[in-house]
Amino acid sequence: MSEIRVGIIGGTGYTGVELLRILVSHPNVKLTCISSRSEQGRPVHELFPSLRGLVNLNFSAPSSTVFSECDVVFSATPNGVAMEHAPALLDAGIRLIDLAADFRIKDTALWEKWYGMTHACPQLVEEAVYGLPEVYREQIRGAQLVANPGCYPTAVQLGFLPLLENRLVDPGSLIADAKSGISGAGRKAALGTAYAETADSFKAYGVPGHRHLPEIKQGLQSVATDPIDLVFTPHLLPLIRGIHATLYATLLDPSATDLQSVFEHRYADERFVDVMPEGSHPDTRSVRGSNTCRLAIHRPVETNRVVVLAVEDNLVKGAAGQAVQNMNIMFSLDEHTGLTGAALFP
Amino acid sequence: MSEIRVGIIGGTGYTGVELLRILVSHPNVKLTCISSRSEQGRPVHELFPSLRGLVNLNFSAPSSTVFSECDVVFSATPNGVAMEHAPALLDAGIRLIDLAADFRIKDTALWEKWYGMTHACPQLVEEAVYGLPEVYREQIRGAQLVANPGCYPTAVQLGFLPLLENRLVDPGSLIADAKSGISGAGRKAALGTAYAETADSFKAYGVPGHRHLPEIKQGLQSVATDPIDLVFTPHLLPLIRGIHATLYATLLDPSATDLQSVFEHRYADERFVDVMPEGSHPDTRSVRGSNTCRLAIHRPVETNRVVVLAVEDNLVKGAAGQAVQNMNIMFSLDEHTGLTGAALFP
Amino acid sequence: MSEIRVGIIGGTGYTGVELLRILVSHPNVKLTCISSRSEQGRPVHELFPSLRGLVNLNFSAPSSTVFSECDVVFSATPNGVAMEHAPALLDAGIRLIDLAADFRIKDTALWEKWYGMTHACPQLVEEAVYGLPEVYREQIRGAQLVANPGCYPTAVQLGFLPLLENRLVDPGSLIADAKSGISGAGRKAALGTAYAETADSFKAYGVPGHRHLPEIKQGLQSVATDPIDLVFTPHLLPLIRGIHATLYATLLDPSATDLQSVFEHRYADERFVDVMPEGSHPDTRSVRGSNTCRLAIHRPVETNRVVVLAVEDNLVKGAAGQAVQNMNIMFSLDEHTGLTGAALFP
Amino acid sequence: MSEIRVGIIGGTGYTGVELLRILVSHPNVKLTCISSRSEQGRPVHELFPSLRGLVNLNFSAPSSTVFSECDVVFSATPNGVAMEHAPALLDAGIRLIDLAADFRIKDTALWEKWYGMTHACPQLVEEAVYGLPEVYREQIRGAQLVANPGCYPTAVQLGFLPLLENRLVDPGSLIADAKSGISGAGRKAALGTAYAETADSFKAYGVPGHRHLPEIKQGLQSVATDPIDLVFTPHLLPLIRGIHATLYATLLDPSATDLQSVFEHRYADERFVDVMPEGSHPDTRSVRGSNTCRLAIHRPVETNRVVVLAVEDNLVKGAAGQAVQNMNIMFSLDEHTGLTGAALFP
Repeated sequence: MSEIRVGIIGGTGYTGVELLRILVSHPNVKLTCISSRSEQGRPVHELFPSLRGLVNLNFSAPSSTVFSECDVVFSATPNGVAMEHAPALLDAGIRLIDLAADFRIKDTALWEKWYGMTHACPQLVEEAVYGLPEVYREQIRGAQLVANPGCYPTAVQLGFLPLLENRLVDPGSLIADAKSGISGAGRKAALGTAYAETADSFKAYGVPGHRHLPEIKQGLQSVATDPIDLVFTPHLLPLIRGIHATLYATLLDPSATDLQSVFEHRYADERFVDVMPEGSHPDTRSVRGSNTCRLAIHRPVETNRVVVLAVEDNLVKGAAGQAVQNMNIMFSLDEHTGLTGAALFP
Repeated sequence: MSEIRVGIIGGTGYTGVELLRILVSHPNVKLTCISSRSEQGRPVHELFPSLRGLVNLNFSAPSSTVFSECDVVFSATPNGVAMEHAPALLDAGIRLIDLAADFRIKDTALWEKWYGMTHACPQLVEEAVYGLPEVYREQIRGAQLVANPGCYPTAVQLGFLPLLENRLVDPGSLIADAKSGISGAGRKAALGTAYAETADSFKAYGVPGHRHLPEIKQGLQSVATDPIDLVFTPHLLPLIRGIHATLYATLLDPSATDLQSVFEHRYADERFVDVMPEGSHPDTRSVRGSNTCRLAIHRPVETNRVVVLAVEDNLVKGAAGQAVQNMNIMFSLDEHTGLTGAALFP
Repeated sequence: MSEIRVGIIGGTGYTGVELLRILVSHPNVKLTCISSRSEQGRPVHELFPSLRGLVNLNFSAPSSTVFSECDVVFSATPNGVAMEHAPALLDAGIRLIDLAADFRIKDTALWEKWYGMTHACPQLVEEAVYGLPEVYREQIRGAQLVANPGCYPTAVQLGFLPLLENRLVDPGSLIADAKSGISGAGRKAALGTAYAETADSFKAYGVPGHRHLPEIKQGLQSVATDPIDLVFTPHLLPLIRGIHATLYATLLDPSATDLQSVFEHRYADERFVDVMPEGSHPDTRSVRGSNTCRLAIHRPVETNRVVVLAVEDNLVKGAAGQAVQNMNIMFSLDEHTGLTGAALFP
Repeated sequence: MSEIRVGIIGGTGYTGVELLRILVSHPNVKLTCISSRSEQGRPVHELFPSLRGLVNLNFSAPSSTVFSECDVVFSATPNGVAMEHAPALLDAGIRLIDLAADFRIKDTALWEKWYGMTHACPQLVEEAVYGLPEVYREQIRGAQLVANPGCYPTAVQLGFLPLLENRLVDPGSLIADAKSGISGAGRKAALGTAYAETADSFKAYGVPGHRHLPEIKQGLQSVATDPIDLVFTPHLLPLIRGIHATLYATLLDPSATDLQSVFEHRYADERFVDVMPEGSHPDTRSVRGSNTCRLAIHRPVETNRVVVLAVEDNLVKGAAGQAVQNMNIMFSLDEHTGLTGAALFP
């Protein structure tokens, strides 16, 4: 395989710098261009000293031509930016992986309701492939435009899918009690994510409704016959990286005994989904910096419910790592190329 | 009111030192005796420099006579210790508030199963009053022996009770996704609670079954007609103090609209239960160091479930503060005496 | 003593809310007025849920008349605001305690250089009393205008003063390696104090020169004959509250043996300065939420230097607590009134 | 280069698991054997889920023969263990890199005083090469036995060396105010490193004297003519990984202006020492998980002192990473093989 020339739109956020961290060690990638409206002209390593000696590019102004030499572009911008760039990039034959939400929801009206803006290119939404390789691997292979899943939706879907695909639980009984590290809120000046406002504390947020709800329901509904009824409750964890989703569902057959092997079978060939041994309680640090989602399945005493625990690094399997996994698939590389490092423990 | 002479059995754990922190500012209390097997003879402030200048007692050996001058004794020991001391103390006319689990569960066989030991004085279990003032205030007033509730059970019960008492939810649909700060595990040398093993990480534990499950179910069942089916999932938060319980139940009548006022009415006269305005997301720091449990009630979109958020400081309303609240009731003081301080924010 | 009517200018920052936390438990204080330009009209407890049920005031617009009923006003604003309000308040016979830097430095030109603004009322600078009770108690008693010391300067001065007053160290050899929790940076939206930018990390800042340097040098020089040469290096700790100053000086007489008793003698009558036993290493949590500064004195092996460790809560003894201590002195109350609570441990 | 067969003695501590994390991605290494007395027979990935799918070895009992197939053995044990194994390993022609302190101090009597035990093979101490590549690269190349430096000594020496080698500072004026993350205390059950005892807090420890003092002084003295007088003050940071050393020295010539270029020149060819631009304040997270030590040089205002800031990851450049760097040198690999990953940010 020859070199893949890669560009990044919006390289100053946490998903952008995480892409950089991963891509500098990727053996088939040549980092070609990184854009930022606010930091144009500035050396990347000046903003991110962790990349000193590893990245020698300066931030470019985001323009239609700056990515012309790229084979693929990652868009690591806020919601609503990628849809402005997508048509020109795709027209120029450049493949696009959007890490924001612009192309995740097939129902454009629903998207517009939750995201509060008009979609700039609804015609591309249908064409976009949802970048969850464990479900859409074949479509990703040939995709020009990949909608990289949200962080919460990745963990929640990977945890619920085997149960729904195998008709083991009532689709009307789902609860996803999800907890995310603060990097999930992005790199920005905001009182709500200030250290003294969040450290040594914990809270739920968006309980009435969160933007990831329609994305999760779309994914779960696609494998269920009956309507999905899902309560999705996000919480803010006082830690930097990590998502823990605690998933609940009511078993259709309370005597079902072999949920463990259902999960093991479902993910037997998946390099980045780790079904842990029975009785396990995965911690988020076990995937810190790695592209793995670890799952554990439990049957609590005295109840007919099943509990699935799912952990991932929100910036890796929940964002940049999964995006690189998608790139590997799109360019026919081994899916784990550049994604083999162990989690940083402790 | 004259002075209450107070003793503490086992003053070296976190609930013990928290009792000391509260009691040194209590206007009606004279700290008389603090025992510790491991630290006997040592000045209390040497172990806890935060109490320098405030507590001048030395730790005593725990013996049957050392508390003879006390009006009330708090037992802040591991499970299984208070039941050894209780008969002698009660015989001597000394009232006892046990912060451990020895007298919480009325079904002794059930207690012995979950706690893995034989109960030393089952005859006292029936007599003991469960020290949740919001339910058992009148019985606490005259109690000789109070079983102070567990930290998780306090938050979970306060959150579910109004829904169950008013027959608003299906008792077979309950889920308590609960998260606790690490001080809940006690003050001890253990790898599992080491900083480098828990900081910047998050995990569930005891998902198959946790000792607080039977205590919670006993409390909820007492106000429900149909059988309680509860999934209780504890998690370990990377913070020092604080419990956040996210409670789920299925509404019997999905068109029920006024859950907020049900809660406000239920706790209108409760000084230490704060029903927050609609739409609130209480954070644990809002009760750090205070005896308040804050609640918020939510109806998520597109579902027939209700979500209750409950926060408390596990060492205060979840342990030492509630114990002092119980003492105040037992000695006919204003219930909030010594418990009026604001939470430490930030 | 009758009630003291208290106002607060700028009650939305961390020193403001900490004043509120302390003052709601102060037996001689009536909170009369709290101003905030940005939050006027809003209930205080809406911004700070930790004060629900304890503070029922709304934020007022800051105006010249709103404080007319007050006996004393605390100014908890950014630097440069108190000097605008001071003349009118003092003219109206209202005493003023400024928690910012406006009146701390006697050399106005020096102040203007470090703070980058023109002083609005240099005539009041001379009149202002520096509010470090351990040095200026008598002057504070009659002061109309108190310049409450900075957080770093409080710890550094309390640690160095006994050595300098007793001519035990070379004034040209001083180093203050100081570390502060993040609340010291104030309550504001800023990338530099975001959780994901500061947690699990540590760094120095302002090494070339920090605004607290001239304040510290002014205080130390006032008790030294030879010129003070001080390196002051602030660092940002990944914790909420707490300052730890590690102080170094070269002993004039390396055979000096009784530094411990020098410190114990100096602070024998000081309620809020705790000279710990020899060999101690105070931790910041031992003063979390309390008005105490703890000191420990060390003679490292194989050297002629002395090391003093000083810890305080930057928001209490380093700000709001010391301000209340000053108020107590100004109004002839017991100096510790409202300041007797134990530190929150753990 | 053919494959290097690697063994690890004591693979259950933090330096052991960090060696594993690095070595599983090292292209020239075959992990052959990992011993542990307490965990023998247990799969490595059971103890460390972060290594699931990456390490398939079980822990072996530590015996004289188990490492016979290895080319090199890392000893990641507590102090005093490697010296028991060293003679047999070296006799068998196996090279040894000791990550503990057994062979760091040339003066055996001094070592025995600070470490409180009798040295088991003093004859090997002289032969051992101190594994600081930036000073001893040539000797490391041919070494059979490498004494990998301590975490603090690495940062402190790299920061002071250019100043001392160039006779720019008074060797009698040195202060190293050093702060370490809690992983530096090792993986063990201990109250002193419990989360609730260390989080949200900060303290100094070992101020009278710490075991790394003689190691640092030995290294600094070797490049100085006059006697080194050093105060070394370690502190415990509430974070997992990272050391920040703040180094102070008095300039012999206060008019010296080009310290920056002295450092840049000294480390121009050093891949793992990064001299940052003037005015920088490196944070520990900028090296989290990487083998880099970043330095910044400052001249504070109004003083004749110089301040050097040095950061490293105590488990990488301060332990396992440096050990692998030494292995690379010993086996004639590119020095950065397996050590090129970017720091984990945020």
